[in-house]
Parts: sequence; structure tokens; C-alpha cells
Amino acid sequence: MGSSNSDSHVDVLIVGAGPAGMMASMHLSELGISHRIIDHRGTRTLNGRADGFHVPTVEIWESFGLYNHIEQYGERFGHWGLWTFGEDPEAGIYRQHRGYIPSQDKARHEIVTMNQGMIEAALGDGVRARNGPVVERGTKPVELTIDESLANDLSSYPITARVYHARKSELPDVWTGAHTVQEDGSLKRERGFIDAFGTDPHEFENHVNGVEGTTETIHAKYVIGTDGAHSWVRRQLPDFKMEGDTSDEVFGVVDIIPSTNFPDIRKTCSILSRAGFLLQISRENGLVRLYVQFPEGYETSETKAKDNEAATLTDILAAARKMYYPYTMDYKYCDWWTIYRVGQRVCNKASHLDRIFLAGDAIHTHSPKGGQGMNVSQHDTYSLTWKIAGVLKSQLPPSVLQTYEQERLPIARNLIELDNDMAKVLLARANRDEAEVQRVYKRLSEFSGAISTYKTNMVVGNGARQNAAAGLPIGSRFSNATVYSQADGPATPTQSLLKSNGLWRLIVFAGDVSSHTQLSKVNALGDRLAALQQRYPPLSTRQKHFLEILLFHASPVSAVEFADFHNTFFPKDDILGRNYYTIYGDEDGVDALEKEKRCHAIYRVDETKGALVVVRPDQITAWVGGLDDVGEMEDWLAGFMVGKAEGKRKNSPRDEQDDGVM
Amino acid sequence: MGSSNSDSHVDVLIVGAGPAGMMASMHLSELGISHRIIDHRGTRTLNGRADGFHVPTVEIWESFGLYNHIEQYGERFGHWGLWTFGEDPEAGIYRQHRGYIPSQDKARHEIVTMNQGMIEAALGDGVRARNGPVVERGTKPVELTIDESLANDLSSYPITARVYHARKSELPDVWTGAHTVQEDGSLKRERGFIDAFGTDPHEFENHVNGVEGTTETIHAKYVIGTDGAHSWVRRQLPDFKMEGDTSDEVFGVVDIIPSTNFPDIRKTCSILSRAGFLLQISRENGLVRLYVQFPEGYETSETKAKDNEAATLTDILAAARKMYYPYTMDYKYCDWWTIYRVGQRVCNKASHLDRIFLAGDAIHTHSPKGGQGMNVSQHDTYSLTWKIAGVLKSQLPPSVLQTYEQERLPIARNLIELDNDMAKVLLARANRDEAEVQRVYKRLSEFSGAISTYKTNMVVGNGARQNAAAGLPIGSRFSNATVYSQADGPATPTQSLLKSNGLWRLIVFAGDVSSHTQLSKVNALGDRLAALQQRYPPLSTRQKHFLEILLFHASPVSAVEFADFHNTFFPKDDILGRNYYTIYGDEDGVDALEKEKRCHAIYRVDETKGALVVVRPDQITAWVGGLDDVGEMEDWLAGFMVGKAEGKRKNSPRDEQDDGVM
Repeated sequence: MGSSNSDSHVDVLIVGAGPAGMMASMHLSELGISHRIIDHRGTRTLNGRADGFHVPTVEIWESFGLYNHIEQYGERFGHWGLWTFGEDPEAGIYRQHRGYIPSQDKARHEIVTMNQGMIEAALGDGVRARNGPVVERGTKPVELTIDESLANDLSSYPITARVYHARKSELPDVWTGAHTVQEDGSLKRERGFIDAFGTDPHEFENHVNGVEGTTETIHAKYVIGTDGAHSWVRRQLPDFKMEGDTSDEVFGVVDIIPSTNFPDIRKTCSILSRAGFLLQISRENGLVRLYVQFPEGYETSETKAKDNEAATLTDILAAARKMYYPYTMDYKYCDWWTIYRVGQRVCNKASHLDRIFLAGDAIHTHSPKGGQGMNVSQHDTYSLTWKIAGVLKSQLPPSVLQTYEQERLPIARNLIELDNDMAKVLLARANRDEAEVQRVYKRLSEFSGAISTYKTNMVVGNGARQNAAAGLPIGSRFSNATVYSQADGPATPTQSLLKSNGLWRLIVFAGDVSSHTQLSKVNALGDRLAALQQRYPPLSTRQKHFLEILLFHASPVSAVEFADFHNTFFPKDDILGRNYYTIYGDEDGVDALEKEKRCHAIYRVDETKGALVVVRPDQITAWVGGLDDVGEMEDWLAGFMVGKAEGKRKNSPRDEQDDGVM
Repeated sequence: MGSSNSDSHVDVLIVGAGPAGMMASMHLSELGISHRIIDHRGTRTLNGRADGFHVPTVEIWESFGLYNHIEQYGERFGHWGLWTFGEDPEAGIYRQHRGYIPSQDKARHEIVTMNQGMIEAALGDGVRARNGPVVERGTKPVELTIDESLANDLSSYPITARVYHARKSELPDVWTGAHTVQEDGSLKRERGFIDAFGTDPHEFENHVNGVEGTTETIHAKYVIGTDGAHSWVRRQLPDFKMEGDTSDEVFGVVDIIPSTNFPDIRKTCSILSRAGFLLQISRENGLVRLYVQFPEGYETSETKAKDNEAATLTDILAAARKMYYPYTMDYKYCDWWTIYRVGQRVCNKASHLDRIFLAGDAIHTHSPKGGQGMNVSQHDTYSLTWKIAGVLKSQLPPSVLQTYEQERLPIARNLIELDNDMAKVLLARANRDEAEVQRVYKRLSEFSGAISTYKTNMVVGNGARQNAAAGLPIGSRFSNATVYSQADGPATPTQSLLKSNGLWRLIVFAGDVSSHTQLSKVNALGDRLAALQQRYPPLSTRQKHFLEILLFHASPVSAVEFADFHNTFFPKDDILGRNYYTIYGDEDGVDALEKEKRCHAIYRVDETKGALVVVRPDQITAWVGGLDDVGEMEDWLAGFMVGKAEGKRKNSPRDEQDDGVM
């Protein structure tokens, strides 16, 4: 990696290796884009920090093959308890409600919590599995310039970043605040629950990848700044400012193994006490996280927190105890804690000259009340990286990069509005309207479930033929239904077919193919779609085509055979043989009336007509039309796709399979 | 590890690192038993070999935290097709049936296939996660003696094994047979789909752990021989012989990416053709495995196979093509193939002086028709290792080791009988009775689902009070039901609570605890059960107690609070706090009549009475009685448990948590 005062070139430089930066690195690695990722810290996050994982984020991880980490290490959300206070000022809190999280009980996946250290380790596993770069730790950017005259030259490296490879001695101690309370009341430092998985050698001690004490100049085509709320990258950019509330909320956060008689200690609880708002989240290893909102006017500062740790932690516990009254709250083991101020703010811009992009906390800061931050941050870079790859691979024009800001800033603003709304309702110390509490939690739940919904832009169609598949709204994440594999039968969630591998997808809803007329109509598209597949270059170096074609039909799988379908729908490779996992139907023996089990009904596609649906590489439904609208679909793609596919590449098992073969 | 002509001591020596040996190593590692595992080969299995994973094996893997590997890398079994032939001798095969595997559609897990290389790698991950030993490869046992005079001395090392650490140059080439067919028809060697996961440095090239070319003398308390059908260990033992059929069946096996017009190519198919029996199994990476039974009299030999690979593989394909007729069958890529003879045989003994044990193929050989071998083999060692640990940890008397042979040999005999039965029915070339085909497949399915069922012995009760929980037959694997966590609500499969960590478990079926009388009756057991937990030493060095107490009640979780229960049912640790994941109830809002959703009804426990159920460390229900029978239960345990627990050990997070903390 870096060498003394050296110069180097890279397509993309990512600054900041938190969840947003690591998601960017994993996606770029999958797409085969040369990049580097630097972080001024000497380790990954070891414990504490963000933890909430909403369903769309779980789905995205699944599409990268990381679901098993969530299943193995994530803590299920389970029951939610809402505690509040009554008329009697002496009585303390009482349980108003317990049950599952509103509207999440029907989701295919569950909300989970997983500590940020585990999340960064899992994303690191995902990067390594794709032969991506190791995070360059102890590497701090010190200067960032862009040659504006080169911004429109696609082959140039207009950005110059100077980075400093720190000396290990300059990095702070890795201790995380973990401690036990001894019998005499003194505190003993502990290592903490900092272990994760994976083979990154720099997980548990400070590490510097470059030559210590040297600087390096990196020339990049693009920079992604995922360096947090105090983003250094943002501060280098002209006209970038965080806008929003000027008054900050102060939160104390602790991860402890509690000693308590509070009956809902292993549930997620919102505690709206007379003494203030407390969010309790059950964690792995018997830990419980408490977010304790301090009363306005509480005096704290970075300095106070550093100089007087015990006193500050004592403040958090004292505040929490008032909120739990009449229940007790104590601990012997603390894994992590912090106090921080946060305002609801969103950046006025997310992109500089379509060359430098900000994502995550660097463009939106808000309270932890909704558990949204890490989700939205990962979605930011997930939605950006394939567009950068599209430009670098000559599939998409540079102007597609404008859609990043167009799509993500409204999401950030919604998030901040939601946070403000929650603050008003949940922080009320008196006269709180219970219906309002229900309303903001419903709003939170809806935001969590449909976290990315975009308006029409270059890569989101206008929805003129939305009615052909009314259940798949254009600009939204592709929702789930169950289909059955024509190849071997098992129930298959449609979302599980949308791997994040850079492929655009055309879903051919074939309708009822037990009708000969309908089957002929579908097969008549075969040659034309095969030609379309060859038209544009793939986004990912790992793919042969830019487009994968999936066929969902509305007949029982036993009603048809593969041989009934045009070759395009189960394509053949000279070495790898046919791909049979492209055709799906309905379950055998399911009644035509059992609509909730049938994918055409769920997506509101007429079985006698069928539909065509284009899904972007980031699982967003981008275009919808009828089987007769294939020309309109081609025109829509031609409206922004720029490249020409190269001649047919040599078939090789490496093209479509993982690198394991041969 | 080994050094030149050196002597060393170890509690358990495992010979053979296939799935049976690796399961033994993982379980011993979990229990904290010092052991070594040697294998004469220089690598793990790289591809091919066994692959079928039945549901009980999936459950056992889950109990070791390995389920995620199956979920990520296993291939779901999906639909099964039964193809047969009709009257017309020219017509070839036709599809008689397709659908899910009989009786498996209600199981909590699915049958999967996963190649043996992946299985060994996953078990290796499991060993490493428990700080167990690396497999000593290139290490061949050359002499095995036992000093019978020491066999009854528990502190002695009566077994002497001399092992040879091979020179790398003596080990065979690692090529697996993978190749592609070139355009000119010639064969090109390929690396094969040999990648797995994990960090074992010796996965892809021959490795010798000891000093090459030296011998080492190992003194062991116990030896487990898991060295396959041609077991070297078995051949060292007096009076051990394989009994059964003298005529062998010859099978050709290939893993290919097929080029075919056979419509069910991605289903698991039994093809009962006029030309013979063929079993087709769909695999990962587009591979399909064909087990092709050769006609009687087919001439092959190890020599022929080695000297004339292409010709022998050609024989397999030629035989397969006759069986697929009128469909085509060809390939361009072959991952692995072999031809082998197998007889249905079982060993007359499985244990020598209760010091040397054989397991897996070393004691049972049979055809691949039922896909059982690797399952039964892993169950062999899973059921043996905790008993050895029990003796080493002074919890169980040495005579418990006799129950290994008592339990496992009947299973092996059942397996061989089943294989014989299947052979008679499936291999018939004419006059086959279709009802008989259905019968043997039903028998196979029942065997697969209840793969370990034991008669009364020292550690299996006599069932005098079986009626207290008639749905949990003594001697069988603990079946699954769904309970709901009192702590945080989520649906929890009862089987998922039976971790393989050396704990005996007492399941207290508390009945309807919304009745004050019933609740009092349950809580009255608290002090007595807490005392029982202290009575015997733990099987595993990682556990504080020998017994874990779980409470399942028959009220909705919202009807009771933790504070209603005796402390014993949610025990407290000074540092780790309370364990709240020990009490489970019924789902809120479920009608009392929805019996199939309620665990007491599924296990046939009277809600007005409750029950006590003891589960062994290997998930076998061992004793059943009523709440009033607690004295009988104590007596039953006292009838074989020998040790005395030490004084209360110091509480430390290391005791019950993983090694991650502090």
C-alpha cells in the first residue's frame, strides 16, 4: 500500500470505513472496480455505536450473501414495550403496551440488532470474498483538491488526495470503556465483547498499513466521503453546509449487563417517563443498550467526558434510574458508553462536480430514536456505487451521477423530519397525546419498511404503464412474493433472486402459460430479448451480460416443461451448461383463488396478459409495462445507456461462476 | 505437533478426519477434552464423495452453531422425481411421479446436499471456534497396542499408537479427477470446484504437520477409529469382522455439469430403468451427481480405474445413457468421479475393552441409495464423545461406554437391512411392484427422520412414566415444537434450545401457570432443583453446572411475569446478570383449542399437571415423569452418575459465555 511520499492512482477512493464506507467497498469489489478505502482509526469499531438493522438492510445484505452473519450474530428484535407515566407524580412508569413492532410482523425478515463491530467485520468478510482491498487503517486525509478543468474528462484523475500514514504511537489507546464494578466499588478495565469473525489481522490492535510517518498522494477519479458527522471531506468542499435545527439533543448511551427488576428488560422498550425519554434495546451477550435523553441544559463536553469518565457515566445511570422508577437499574459489567450531542441536520448537497460524493452521517445527523442511521447510511452508498461503476464501465453517462443527490437527499430530509416529529411527541413531559405516540411509531415503521423510494429521474421511469404491475411501484424497492422453481420445486422468495452483482434484471411476468396463445406470445419475445442482452456492456467485470432475464409464470410448475420455453429463458453456456434457475411458477396444487400465494396476484399482474418489469442493480423497480411494450422498454433503456457491448466474449466458467472453478 | 521418534500423551486419539472424525473432534473440543486427530491424507476431502444431509443431522449441526454453513452452501433437495419403465422394451423411461420427498414436507429443516469437502471445512470451522486441534495430516498409524492390564485404571494411558509422519513426496497428487472435454475430444485437467471456507492452511495442497519422515509414539486413554470402510484401526483389533452379504454392488459415480434434454435434471431423481438403477442428485455450481449401478458381472478393479481413467469414466457415462434413454446425457465439465464396490455389511463389534471405538464406515458399509452413510457416521461419534467426556470428567462410570455399542450397532443393522430391502425392490429389472417402491421409500424416509432411537440402557430410562409426556418417546431424539420467549416474545423452536455443549437438560413442563395452584406447585420445586444442579460435576469444562433447567409453561407469555417464578428458573450470575432465556410460554392470542400450535399439546403433556423431561447432552429424551416424580428422577440420575461436584466455582464471565469477553 502507501510508500514514502509516493504518488498513486486509483479509480475510487473511499474515506471512512464505517458501515457506509464498507458497503461502498463491498459493492465496488463485487463490480470489479479498482478502489482504496482509508480510515484514520487504527481498528474497526470494536463495540458500541450503531446497531439497528431494518428489514430492507437485511434484504440488501442477503443479496450480497451476508445474511448468514445476521442470522448467526444478530439479536432478534422480538417484543416491543411502550412504558409511560400517569397522573400521579409519585407513581413512576407503567406498561401501556407490549407486542410485536407495529407492521413488521408480516415482513419476510425480522428487525435485528447487531453491534457495529460485527457489522464492519461482516462487511469486511464480504469485501475479502470478492478479492477487494483491505481497509488502510491509521491513514488520515490531509489535503483534497480537484482540478475542475478535468471534471468532464472521463479518462482523467481530477482529484488529488494527500494522506498521512500515522505512526502507531500517534493513535489512541484501543480501550473501549469496558469495565466491571468491583466489590469495593472501584472500576476494573476489561477487554470488552470486542471479538467478531473474519481474518482481518488488524481487528484487535492498532494497525497502520502504510509506511508510518509518511504522506502519500493519491490521484482518484472519484472520492466517496463516508467519514461521519464531523466529515473531514465535507469540510474541504465549498458551499457544503449542514442545515436544520440549531438546538442539539444530548444523549447518554450505555451497553451494560443490567441488574434490575424491570420486567421487560429483554424487550425493546420506549420509556416515556416524567423524567425524560429512554430507549432500551436488548443486545447480544446479555447486554442491554440504554439511550438516555438528557434534560435540556445538561452540561457536557468532549472534555468533560474524557477527563471524568466515571462521573459522566454516573450521570447517565442516575438519569436512567429516574426514568425507570419505580424499578431498579444497576450493573456490574459495562461494555461501552458515550455521551453525545446531536442536531437534526441534513447537508444542502451530496455531490461536488459529480466527482466527490458524501454519504451517511456526513450528510444527515439525527437522534437514535428511530434506529435508522446505519440503515440509511448503507443505502446511500449501495445506491451510489453501481452508478459510478456504470460510468467507469461505459454503460451509463456521467450525468447519471446527478441522480445520487436527487434520490438520496429527499430520503435524508424525510429522515430528519421524522426525527423531529418523534422528538416533539416522545419528549413531551406532559399532556402527551397517546394517539400521537401511535402515529409517530406507525410513521417510523413505514419509513423503515420502504426506506428508499425515488421520484422519476434518468434511471427511474415515469410510470406511464404502471398499471401492468400495479403491485410493483416504480421507484420503490422490489417487494417480495413467493415463486416456485421450475427446476426443482422449492418455494423461492423473489427478492432472493435479486443478487447485488451489477445485473439489471428484466422480469418477464409470463401469465398463464398453460394457455397456448399466452405461451406463444411470451416465446415470441425470446429472440428480441436475447439481442437486447447483447446491446450494452455489463456493469460488472464478473458478468457476461448487462441484463439477466427471469421468467415468472402463473401456472403450476407441473403444468409446463422447460422445453416449452424459448432458449433465452434458460440460457446455455458451452461449459457451464444451462442455467435452469431462471424460470419460476406457482405452487403445484394451489387453488387459483388463493391469491395471497400467487405472485401475479400479489404484484397485480393480469394473468391473461403478463407484464415486463425492469429492476435496477440496486433492487429498485425502474420500469413497468405490458408484454407488448417491449419496444417502449428498449427505447427507455436506450434513452440513457451509452456503451456498446464488446464482441461475444469467450465462454469460460469464470464469467458467471465464482472464482472457485479451475 | 509430533517430533522425531518422540513420545506424547493425549486423552483421546482420533484416527481419520472425515465427517465422523471431525464431528468427534468438534464435540470433544466443545467439552474441553484434550485430543488429537490424525489423517494419512495430505488434504481434507476436496470434492465428490458423500453429500446427503438428512434433517436430524441438520439439527445436530444447528446445535453446534453450524447451521449457517448449510444454509449458505447447501443445495436444497426440492422436488423428487420417480422415473420408471413400461411394457414397451423400446420406449425407455417415463416420469411416474414428482413432488416433495415423502413425509419430509413438514420438517422444520429441509434435506440438503453439500459436498464432503464443504462438510469437512465447516466441521473444521467448528473445531477452530472451540480452540480445538488442527487435523494432523500426512500422519499414518503404523502400530496400535493396548495394555489390557491397564484397561480398568482410569488414570492410565493403556493404548500405544505409533504413527508415521509422511514425507510430502510420499503423498499422492491432489488432483481430483476434474477435467473439461476439449473441442477435439481430448481431456484437459482442471482444478475443480474445490474451494470451501475457513482458514485451515492445508486445504488445497498436501500438508504434513509432523516432522517429515519420522515416527511418534502416542499414549492415549481412548482411540476413536473413523478411518473408513477399509479401517486400519479395525484390522488391528482381534475378533472384529464385517458381517453381511458376500456379493458386492458396483457403483459408478460422477459429478458433472450435464448437457441433456432430460426435463427433471435439477430434481433429485430415482431412475428405475430397464438398464438398471440410477440415482440423480442436483448439486451446487450447476453440478449433477449420478450414482449409476452397474450390471452384475461388470469387471472393474482399483487397478483398472487407476490405469485407464478415461475408459472407466466412459463406462459410467455409457451405462448412464442407457438408463436415461430416450433422453440424452453428455457433459463438458466433470468435477469428480469414481467406481467402487460395496457390500451391505456391519461390524460384529464397535468397541474394544471400552477403550478403542470404531465409528462410521469402519463399522457399516452399504450402497449410496438412501444417502444415509455420512449422517449415521456423524451420529455415531456425536453419541460417543459425550460419554467419553463424562468418564474423563468423573460424571459417568466407565461402564457407560458399553452403551455406545448397545445403541449404535442396532442402528447400523437397521441401515443395512434397509439398504438390502431397497436393493431388492429398486434393482428389479422386471415385474417390479410399484407399491413396494412406495413402501421402501416410505421406510427410507422414516429411517431418515428418526435416525437415532435407542432401547432402555444405563442412560435411557425405562419409560415407566412415559405417559406424562407421551409425545416425547424415551430413547428418541427430542422432537420440535414452537414456544415463545418469556423474555422478549419471538417464536423459538424447542430444538434450538438444545445446544450441544455438554449440558444435561431438565425440561420442566409447568402446565397452565395462570392457575395459582399450578404455579405454586412448580415453584415448590425450585430449591430442590437448584440443589440437584449442584450435585454432579459438569461434563464440559465450559459449564458451571451439569444440568440446565428450562421451563415451558402453557399460558400466554403475557399472562405471567418473571417475578412470578422461583429464582431457579431464571438464574442469576453475579457478573453476567440473570439468564432470561430459560422460560418459554405459549403465543399471546392463540386460542386454547389451536393444539398444533401449543407445545404441551404437541408433546402430549396435561396442562393441568405438567411433566418433567430429562434430555441427554446428545438431544435424546432419556427420562419422563410427572412433577410429583422429582424423587424418581433424582434416583434415576443417582443410579449412574458417579462424581461429586466441586465446591461452588468462582463466578466469571468465562464460565458460561464464549471466550470473547475480557
